[in-house]
Amino acid sequence: MKKPNVVILGAGYGGLMTTVRLQELVGINEASITLVNKNDYHYETTWLHEASAGTLHHDRVRYPISDVIDRNKVKFVKDTVVKIVPDEKKVLMKNGELTYDYLVIALGFESETFGIKGLKEYAFSISNVNAARQIREHIEYQFATYNTEEEKRDERLTIVVGGAGFTGIEFLGELVNRVPELCREYDIDPHKVRIICVEAAPTALPGFDPELVEYAVNQLERKGVEFKIGTAIKECTPEGIIVAKGDDIEEIKAGTVVWAAGVRGSHVIDESGFEAMRGRIKVDPFLRVPGHEDIFVVGDCSLVINEETNRPYPPTAQIAMQEGELCAKNLAVLIRQQGELQPFRPDIKGTVCSLGEDDAIGVVFGKKIWGTKASFMKKMIDNRALYLIGGPSLVMKKGKFKFF
Amino acid sequence: MKKPNVVILGAGYGGLMTTVRLQELVGINEASITLVNKNDYHYETTWLHEASAGTLHHDRVRYPISDVIDRNKVKFVKDTVVKIVPDEKKVLMKNGELTYDYLVIALGFESETFGIKGLKEYAFSISNVNAARQIREHIEYQFATYNTEEEKRDERLTIVVGGAGFTGIEFLGELVNRVPELCREYDIDPHKVRIICVEAAPTALPGFDPELVEYAVNQLERKGVEFKIGTAIKECTPEGIIVAKGDDIEEIKAGTVVWAAGVRGSHVIDESGFEAMRGRIKVDPFLRVPGHEDIFVVGDCSLVINEETNRPYPPTAQIAMQEGELCAKNLAVLIRQQGELQPFRPDIKGTVCSLGEDDAIGVVFGKKIWGTKASFMKKMIDNRALYLIGGPSLVMKKGKFKFF
Repeated sequence: MKKPNVVILGAGYGGLMTTVRLQELVGINEASITLVNKNDYHYETTWLHEASAGTLHHDRVRYPISDVIDRNKVKFVKDTVVKIVPDEKKVLMKNGELTYDYLVIALGFESETFGIKGLKEYAFSISNVNAARQIREHIEYQFATYNTEEEKRDERLTIVVGGAGFTGIEFLGELVNRVPELCREYDIDPHKVRIICVEAAPTALPGFDPELVEYAVNQLERKGVEFKIGTAIKECTPEGIIVAKGDDIEEIKAGTVVWAAGVRGSHVIDESGFEAMRGRIKVDPFLRVPGHEDIFVVGDCSLVINEETNRPYPPTAQIAMQEGELCAKNLAVLIRQQGELQPFRPDIKGTVCSLGEDDAIGVVFGKKIWGTKASFMKKMIDNRALYLIGGPSLVMKKGKFKFF
Repeated sequence: MKKPNVVILGAGYGGLMTTVRLQELVGINEASITLVNKNDYHYETTWLHEASAGTLHHDRVRYPISDVIDRNKVKFVKDTVVKIVPDEKKVLMKNGELTYDYLVIALGFESETFGIKGLKEYAFSISNVNAARQIREHIEYQFATYNTEEEKRDERLTIVVGGAGFTGIEFLGELVNRVPELCREYDIDPHKVRIICVEAAPTALPGFDPELVEYAVNQLERKGVEFKIGTAIKECTPEGIIVAKGDDIEEIKAGTVVWAAGVRGSHVIDESGFEAMRGRIKVDPFLRVPGHEDIFVVGDCSLVINEETNRPYPPTAQIAMQEGELCAKNLAVLIRQQGELQPFRPDIKGTVCSLGEDDAIGVVFGKKIWGTKASFMKKMIDNRALYLIGGPSLVMKKGKFKFF
C-alpha cells in the first residue's frame, strides 16, 4: 500500500502545530508529510504589534521553520499557494504544484477593509513581518522628516489607529511607549505628536469585561491616546482619514494610518471555490471541509461555532494551536485507519490584552487581572506558544523574560 | 569704556573654533561674547555621510555646544539667523535680534543644485543632522517596503549618488558596507540592489592623485558600485534621474537619489546684500569683509584664494578650523587694541578620503597612502578635530577608536 501524502499549507500557529504534532505521531514509513509556506520562517502573529511599533525587533518575533520540523519526516517547500483544486487533489503554487491524499489548509488571516475607500491604498495593516517592519520604518521616516522641512507639518507626527479591538489596543500600548523614544531620537517636542484611535463600535474592546476596558482606556489616555469611540472611518486618503460620528463628518490629517479593525481568512479559500464567509470555512466537528473529507482547515481560515453563544470562536492563536493538535491526531487516525476521529472541543484558558511592556488586562481561568500581574501572564502565554511548538529550547531562544 | 560685543554666528567647525579660542584668549571683563546657532548641538559635518548611510548613529556625530563653551564667558542663543544689517550693526533672527561691535559669520554651507530641475524637490543632500537621518530612514523605508508589494519594484533598491567628489565617494564607501546589512535585515537578495554614482567631470575625485583615484574606484566597484563618469544629471524626478553622456540620454529609475555634488555658502550672505560668489565672500587677508572691518567670515562662507594655484581653497573642516583660530586671535587684537592683525596662512597637512570602515585614500605630509593605513589616518584626523575644539575629554566621549 502506498504511503498517504499529507500536505500542510501554511506555517502559522495552526499549520506548524499540525506539522510538529504529526511528525511526533506518525513514523517515516506511515506517511509523507509536506509543509508549504511562503517564507522559510514562522512568526508570532500575536507579537507583530510590537515589531510594528518598533518596541521589539522583527527578528525576535520569528524563527526558522527548520528549527522545529524534523527534516527526516517533513519536506519543506518554500512557495506561495495560489489555488487548491479539490477535484484533482492538487495545490497550485507560484512555482509549482503538489498532489495530496490529505490536505490541511492553515493559510491564516488577511486584512479586511470592508470596502472602505482608500484603506487598501493608504493605510497599513499589521498582517505579517513584512508589513510590520514597513509600519515601523514608515513611522520613523515621518519623524525623521519632520525637522528637515522649512514649514513644519505637525500632521506628520499624527498616528491614527483604526479599531480599538484586540490588535488596535495592543498596538496603542506599544506606541505610547515608543513615541517618547522617537521624540528623543529625532529632536521632536512630544506635545506635537498625536495618537488617535477611531472605533466604530460603542466601546473599545467589545466583548471584554467593561471594568477592564475602562482600565485599559484610562491607562492609554493617561499616556496620550485620544479615543474616538462610536466613530466610523469613512475614507482613507493620502493625507489622513475622514470619520463620521452620527452626522458629524471630520477630517483627521495623519502621516500614518494603521488599520487594525478587520481580519478575514485567506483569499485562496475563495479562489478555490470553497463555500466560505470572508475566507473562513465552516468546518465539520472534526475540522474537515463539508463534502471534502480529505481536507482539514485549522486556524483563521476555519470557522467553528461556539455552541454556548451560538457565535463563531474568534480567530486566535490559542484556538489555532488547539485545532492543530486535534488535526494531527485525526490525521494519524486516518493514516493508520485505526481509532476514531475526535471532534474539536476548544479549551479557552483565558484572554490577556497587552497594554505595553509592563501593563495588560485579562481574564484567565475566569479571573479578572490587570497591571504587572496581567503583563506577566501575557508573557507566560507568549512563551507557552513557543513551548508548545518548539519545546524548551525555543523558549530559551525566543522567549520573553523581562517580566518586571 | 564699554566692553565690546562680539557676536559669532554658527557653531560649525569655524564658528565653534573661534568661540573656544576666544574664550581662552580674553577675560570676562574684556568682551561680551555671544554665540548664535540654530541647534543646541555641534555636529561633525565630515562624518555626516556615515549617519546618512546608517553606519554611525547620528548621536555619535554631534555633541551639545554647552560641552565646549565656557558659560561664564559665552552667552549661547539658540536661534536661526535670517539677515545681517551691517549699517545698523544688527543681526536679525527668527525670534529676536542682536547688535554687535564685532561680528563673525560662520554660517556654513548649503547644498547647491545649479538649477538642475527637480533636484531640490526629489533628491536628498547630506547637509546636516536632520537631513542625514532622513536619508538613512528613507533608504531603510525603501528596503522595508520592497517585500510588502505584490509586484516587486526593484528600482526601490536603487540608490543614485550624484557626484563622485569627496562627499559622494565617502558616502559610497559607507553605503557598500551598509547595503549587505540592510539586505539581511529585510530579507532582500543583494543582487537586486544597485548603487550608481553619476559624475559629470571626466574623472572621480577631480584634483586627487590619479593613482589613488583608481584605487578608490576599483575598491568601490569591487563592492558593487556602478560609476557613470563624464555623465551629467539633467533632471531629477519622483521616479529617479535623467542623465546625459554626450548625446545619449538615459533614465535611471531609483528609489533614492542623494545629491552630493555641490555646496555653496549660506543664503544669509545674499539676503544681507554682501558681495559674494555662491554665498561665499572673498575676504581680506585678515578674514574680514572688504569695506566692513568689524565683520569676519570663517568657514564655508569665506573665500580665500590659494596664491600658488590662483584658485580658492576648497571649503574643508581643516581650513575652517584654522580660520577660526586666526579669527579669535585677530578679535583679541581688536578687543585689546594692542598687537597687530595677522593674515591667514593655511597649513594644509593633507587630505584623506574615507572608503568605509577600514579603507581610505589620501595624501598626508606630501605622501600617498591607502588601505588600513589611510583609514587609520582618517580616524586620527576626525579625532583631531574633536581635540582641537573640545580637548581630550571630547575625544574620549566622541572619538573613533575602532582602528582595525
